[in-house]
Amino acid sequence: MGIEFRLSVLAERIGAILQGEDAVVTGVASIGEAGPDQVTFLASHKFARLAIGTKASAIVARSRVEGSGAAFLLSDDPVLAFARLVELFHPPARRPSGISGSASVHQGARLGKDVSVAPFAVIEDGAAIGDRTVVFPGVFVGEGVSVGDDCVLHPNVVIYHGVRLGSRVILHAGCVIGADGFGYVPSPEGLRKIPQVGTVEIGDDVEIGANTAVDRAALGVTRIGRGTKIDNLVQVAHNVVIGTDTAIAAQAGISGSVRIGNRVMIGGQAGLAGHIEVEDGIMLGAKTGVAGTLKSSESRAWSGTPAIPHPAWLKMSALLPKIPDLFRRVRNLEERIKMKGEE
Amino acid sequence: MGIEFRLSVLAERIGAILQGEDAVVTGVASIGEAGPDQVTFLASHKFARLAIGTKASAIVARSRVEGSGAAFLLSDDPVLAFARLVELFHPPARRPSGISGSASVHQGARLGKDVSVAPFAVIEDGAAIGDRTVVFPGVFVGEGVSVGDDCVLHPNVVIYHGVRLGSRVILHAGCVIGADGFGYVPSPEGLRKIPQVGTVEIGDDVEIGANTAVDRAALGVTRIGRGTKIDNLVQVAHNVVIGTDTAIAAQAGISGSVRIGNRVMIGGQAGLAGHIEVEDGIMLGAKTGVAGTLKSSESRAWSGTPAIPHPAWLKMSALLPKIPDLFRRVRNLEERIKMKGEE
Amino acid sequence: MGIEFRLSVLAERIGAILQGEDAVVTGVASIGEAGPDQVTFLASHKFARLAIGTKASAIVARSRVEGSGAAFLLSDDPVLAFARLVELFHPPARRPSGISGSASVHQGARLGKDVSVAPFAVIEDGAAIGDRTVVFPGVFVGEGVSVGDDCVLHPNVVIYHGVRLGSRVILHAGCVIGADGFGYVPSPEGLRKIPQVGTVEIGDDVEIGANTAVDRAALGVTRIGRGTKIDNLVQVAHNVVIGTDTAIAAQAGISGSVRIGNRVMIGGQAGLAGHIEVEDGIMLGAKTGVAGTLKSSESRAWSGTPAIPHPAWLKMSALLPKIPDLFRRVRNLEERIKMKGEE
Repeated sequence: MGIEFRLSVLAERIGAILQGEDAVVTGVASIGEAGPDQVTFLASHKFARLAIGTKASAIVARSRVEGSGAAFLLSDDPVLAFARLVELFHPPARRPSGISGSASVHQGARLGKDVSVAPFAVIEDGAAIGDRTVVFPGVFVGEGVSVGDDCVLHPNVVIYHGVRLGSRVILHAGCVIGADGFGYVPSPEGLRKIPQVGTVEIGDDVEIGANTAVDRAALGVTRIGRGTKIDNLVQVAHNVVIGTDTAIAAQAGISGSVRIGNRVMIGGQAGLAGHIEVEDGIMLGAKTGVAGTLKSSESRAWSGTPAIPHPAWLKMSALLPKIPDLFRRVRNLEERIKMKGEE
Repeated sequence: MGIEFRLSVLAERIGAILQGEDAVVTGVASIGEAGPDQVTFLASHKFARLAIGTKASAIVARSRVEGSGAAFLLSDDPVLAFARLVELFHPPARRPSGISGSASVHQGARLGKDVSVAPFAVIEDGAAIGDRTVVFPGVFVGEGVSVGDDCVLHPNVVIYHGVRLGSRVILHAGCVIGADGFGYVPSPEGLRKIPQVGTVEIGDDVEIGANTAVDRAALGVTRIGRGTKIDNLVQVAHNVVIGTDTAIAAQAGISGSVRIGNRVMIGGQAGLAGHIEVEDGIMLGAKTGVAGTLKSSESRAWSGTPAIPHPAWLKMSALLPKIPDLFRRVRNLEERIKMKGEE
Repeated sequence: MGIEFRLSVLAERIGAILQGEDAVVTGVASIGEAGPDQVTFLASHKFARLAIGTKASAIVARSRVEGSGAAFLLSDDPVLAFARLVELFHPPARRPSGISGSASVHQGARLGKDVSVAPFAVIEDGAAIGDRTVVFPGVFVGEGVSVGDDCVLHPNVVIYHGVRLGSRVILHAGCVIGADGFGYVPSPEGLRKIPQVGTVEIGDDVEIGANTAVDRAALGVTRIGRGTKIDNLVQVAHNVVIGTDTAIAAQAGISGSVRIGNRVMIGGQAGLAGHIEVEDGIMLGAKTGVAGTLKSSESRAWSGTPAIPHPAWLKMSALLPKIPDLFRRVRNLEERIKMKGEE
């Protein structure tokens, strides 16, 4: 609202080169929806025709598109440059700092500078909240929890006792960190609960999506490494250890004691069986079901249930619809062979 | 409690024809559990024997069942007629209108007539709530959110800033509308967040289940069309566009920028890859994994991962258990052929 | 903190036999992480080498491991014995009893002895809470709900009106019990809601994970039997009936009117189609898709989509990557046969 920039200023701020008229722009939009005073971007020149039809003033792109009337902000990494540009138009909204009189903050909790605690948030005894951290309404921060600086805890987030969060962590609404792991042992009286007495540690710059659950360890620590991003409705079971800069898409499920490396990418609805390892840099396709340890030396990309290297899965799955025909062909062969045998 | 109707009155209200005694009935139940002063229904004459054994006073059905002592309420669409009848016995509970003194309603919020706002609900600046809308405890309505008339926001629903809801929308407990989409771009410092500056628009008569997440668009709008129904624990990612009267069962996952048509039916735990389209009227089986655009001209029903037309999937999947035998048969053929070659 | 035991005392309490020095120990840890004054356990002698390297004072195990310097607490069921031992070091934290002045408890609610109701919890008219039950912040207990003794309702749990819980039930944060089932009937005006007027009954000693949803019945009762344990993010649809001592892992989905027996084990992300039955004692592998009733007389263990007996699924799935090769082999055979035919 009211924010505007000259393209030359934007170019400088995002490290791009301006080619074209130095217009004033007032916002960002997708290439199909941008109006005449907005900036857009072209992720790939596969979609170059969109650059010709757009009404945008300017396009962040790797190189000019012939026939487009827009100015260009040229960058080697247009998506990253555009992400920076979006931030300029949409600086993160600051909630007012201070503790709402309608929050419940235990006198034994320690709050940093400029913390914002909204109505109906609860911060229990021994919890520590870092500087400038924002606690939205309905959030529960249990006993002895530690939250770093500049975190955002969206509405109705629940953090069970003793969990530790780094700085700049974002937890989206409804996510639950540190609930008991699913651990029982058969006994004469039925399934007996194994007390879950470990905790959870979440590194700096982690973001976790809405309604995702990260369970506390049975013993020891469930750990999510620095910079890792987790989408909505993901299950992270007890004693899982996830490395740094890993991305996990929505509804994936990670069973107990799984170890996931750094820069791993896990597709939506993928599932990992317990006590296995996924090495650094591996990519799992959506819906993949992983039953055993995956080594990057064997394949970088895996798909299917049970998981096999992605290229093999592509070949196999393309043939599945032809299996009824294969059965027919084998039956034909058997009949031919039988006929020949009887000749 | 205390509600009772003559069958002749019910018949008139639901547009059915009464055949049998005009008894007084006091409630509804399933055909196996109904007692002598209750009404039940027969969805299909496949289950006609249940109509003979039932203790119900009356049965809503397409036609009489010989041998049943019950009265019949005859309707061409017995399930729809019964749904209407259930409403007569169970009119929606009205919560008292008025703003609880324990709610937190910003002075810059606008509330319609006869709104009900429960304790510990939060309505932020610039939000607008339509007439007769019910806001249960623990609900968060963010800045600038617009909610239409006659909506129900069940406990602990979270609506992020700027989201727009139509009228008669029902959001079940714990569902989260408008959290940030899962958008990052690799950078030298790790995964950098792409600010998610779009919003969500939900049409009239939409119902969304418990703990479902609908993310805001990166740019532009995530859109759910009029009359669409979404079950529990569903993921709707950023920039998804869903048409009207579509039904999405529990735990389905819709990736970013997917376009889903009108009157589509998506089975439980189905997953759709990003940037694809599913045309009007298509049905996806439970657990289907959709990797590419689905056209209704090719098939109305799809199943499997990757999705293929449902009839082909049925044939294929019935043969899967016989694949070990097929390998054995091919080995036999190879041996026979080799023997023949050596004769 | 500050709890310590002599090994001889622990042995007596957990019914184990001490072999080795009667040291004083101060806590529990996993075998890889335990320090010199901690107790650990050896679940299986497959991992006996860990017992040699551990720094723990004592190991709960089935039998001694040669070469280990630790004392042993011998038990026929070391996991169960260790679970009891963990409880001794970590007795369940007691929250202070009493009703927070910041809770909203209707005057028509009945509360048992020593109940603990935290800030911002809501207990509505006609609800009954049993003795010593703990209600965490942000919990919603609807009209007429009945909760037994010694239950724990973690933060932001939502229980819709009329639901009944037994005693010693644990509901983890964000779980939603009794939301409307997903029931609609096509009508000229679109999908018309079938009022969901049944309820949910949950037996004694049930534990339900974070953000799991259990829907109320359309008519009648959705039922979860005594001692059953349900993990996070599970969907239990309307009119499902689950027996006793059953375990359901994370993200599994149970469709409407499914009947699940006693001591069933359901793997993560498994899905069950509506109106089927799974008999007592059956085990479903992770990601299994069940389309029809499963009988234990046919197989105890099932996997795949659609589900087949687990041993057959293992054979079949091991061959899937070789299917492209099988197609090639059949083509070769066809060519050989053709050549022969032309000789």
